[in-house]
Formats: sequence, C-alpha cells, structure tokens
Amino acid sequence: MTRIAAKTPSDDVDGDAGALDVGRLQEHVGYALRRAQLAVFQDFIQTMEKVALRPAQYSVLLVMDTHPGLKQTEIAALLGIKRTNFVALVDELEQRGLAERAPSPTDRRSNALYLTKAGKALLARAEKTVTEHEQRLIGLIGVEGKRQLLGLLSKLAELG
Amino acid sequence: MTRIAAKTPSDDVDGDAGALDVGRLQEHVGYALRRAQLAVFQDFIQTMEKVALRPAQYSVLLVMDTHPGLKQTEIAALLGIKRTNFVALVDELEQRGLAERAPSPTDRRSNALYLTKAGKALLARAEKTVTEHEQRLIGLIGVEGKRQLLGLLSKLAELG
Repeated sequence: MTRIAAKTPSDDVDGDAGALDVGRLQEHVGYALRRAQLAVFQDFIQTMEKVALRPAQYSVLLVMDTHPGLKQTEIAALLGIKRTNFVALVDELEQRGLAERAPSPTDRRSNALYLTKAGKALLARAEKTVTEHEQRLIGLIGVEGKRQLLGLLSKLAELG
Repeated sequence: MTRIAAKTPSDDVDGDAGALDVGRLQEHVGYALRRAQLAVFQDFIQTMEKVALRPAQYSVLLVMDTHPGLKQTEIAALLGIKRTNFVALVDELEQRGLAERAPSPTDRRSNALYLTKAGKALLARAEKTVTEHEQRLIGLIGVEGKRQLLGLLSKLAELG
C-alpha cells in the first residue's frame, strides 16, 4: 500500500493526509514507477553528493568511459539529454578538469569527448559509492528481486 | 540492453548514437526506473489525451472519488503535488465543472473537495481508457510480471 507518513490520529490536525491511501491509483504501473523512481533518485542524489556529482554528470562520465571519443551529440542522444543542457553540463565537467573536448577524428565540425585522468579517478570513486546505494536497494528487494526488476523495466522501456 | 533507436550504419552520419549501449549504467536500478517511467508516462499521457486530462488531474479526480470531502492540503500531500501547482490544478477542474470546493466540515479555514456528477462521469471514462493502457503494459510483461513489478516498486518506494 502506498501511504504517506503515518501519524497517530491525534497528530493529524493540520493539512496532513495521515495514513490515507491513494485508492485504485496504487494499481497503476505508472504511478508505482514514479513513486519508486522518486525514492530511488532521492537516495542516489544524496549518494552522489559525496563525490560532488549530479546524476546526469555521473551518467555522462560513465558513458565517456565506456565509449571514449564519442561526439557530444551522440552522448546527449544516448542519454536523452537536451543539447543545451548537455553543453552546460560538459562545460562544467571540463572546468573541473574531469573531461576534455577534442576535435572529432571522424567529423571536424563536432567535438569528441574524453575523460581525463582526474575524471577516471573520480568515476572510480563514484562507482564505489554507487555500489553502496545499489546495496541499499538490494537490501529492500534482494539480488533476485533486482534481477527481476531490471528485466521487467527493460521490457517496459520498449513501449512506444 | 538499453539502446536508442537502432539504425543501419549507413544512416549513422550526423549526431546519432546508433546502437550504442550505455554500458554499466544499464545495471543501475535508478537509470532503468527512469527509462521505463518515461516510456510508460509517454503512453499514459497519450491515453489521457482522449479524455482531455493530464496525469496529475486524473490522479486528483481518482483520489477525490476514493475520499470525498478531503481537504486540498491533504490531497496535495498524499500525491506529492506542490501547493501552488495544486491550487491551479483544482481551479481548472472546477472551471470545467468536474470538481467543486466547499468549506471543510472539520476545518472552516480550508476547503474540502468533491467530484461533481460530470467529474464522476469523466473519471469513469478515464478509468476505462486507462485499462487499455494497462493492457498494453501487460502485453509486454504479463499479468504475473505486473504483480511482481508492483510488489518490487512498493518496496523500493519505502526507501529513505
């Protein structure tokens, strides 16, 4: 059951919905996905604060590590980040010395992106921290639950 | 594997990441949740367009039906909608004749919310339409998959 912070009835004096449920809404996959995603992101954001990265910055560093030399437009498309937001994001990573732009060997008009040594080191620290976050999730749903969940979510992502 | 729109290599000429994968990112629960949630919401938003409702409006109508006479602050808290956004949302429902405010019987300073007859009728139509959306999801993951998914998501939502 999805409930908001449960309080004793005597606490329930001013604008608190107490232990009310959302009724039939909790049977909707979209609603359940949104609630879980907000909770997981909240924990992930706090986890990433230890290495001073926002979730999107972490994703970009990880993709740059997986595919060195990818073009800016390619990474932005892969992660579904808007072009203007993406440029600002890479500017910040470059200013922090974590990433660098270089002319693309395959396309002179665009920049390829590379992690610097400092970027690789920070990513390694970040991934260790992320492991703690994933362990908290596994504490809630188990290793087998995580495997099931990733399988189900990947099928849903194919929608549309 | 999470992939963006796959194209043949010869199409892959300008800023398209083709069949690149996001690497280790796809093992992260938060990333998988976000991708699935975006896909499911996209379908849900299109579904709700048939009854001219946005997802948040639908949620509010459904909760008003489940708990008639709830205070504005209570519904907003229950659904995690910010107070200012919520007031505008209820204004719109009221202007469309779907909901009405009345002084709360338990708290004269705040308004209780009720569905009108038209609101109940539209909600019934909306819920029929939502069934089609949920059937599309079940087509991807099965009835048992949906049951598993809701169970796993509800555990994750308890995080933090």
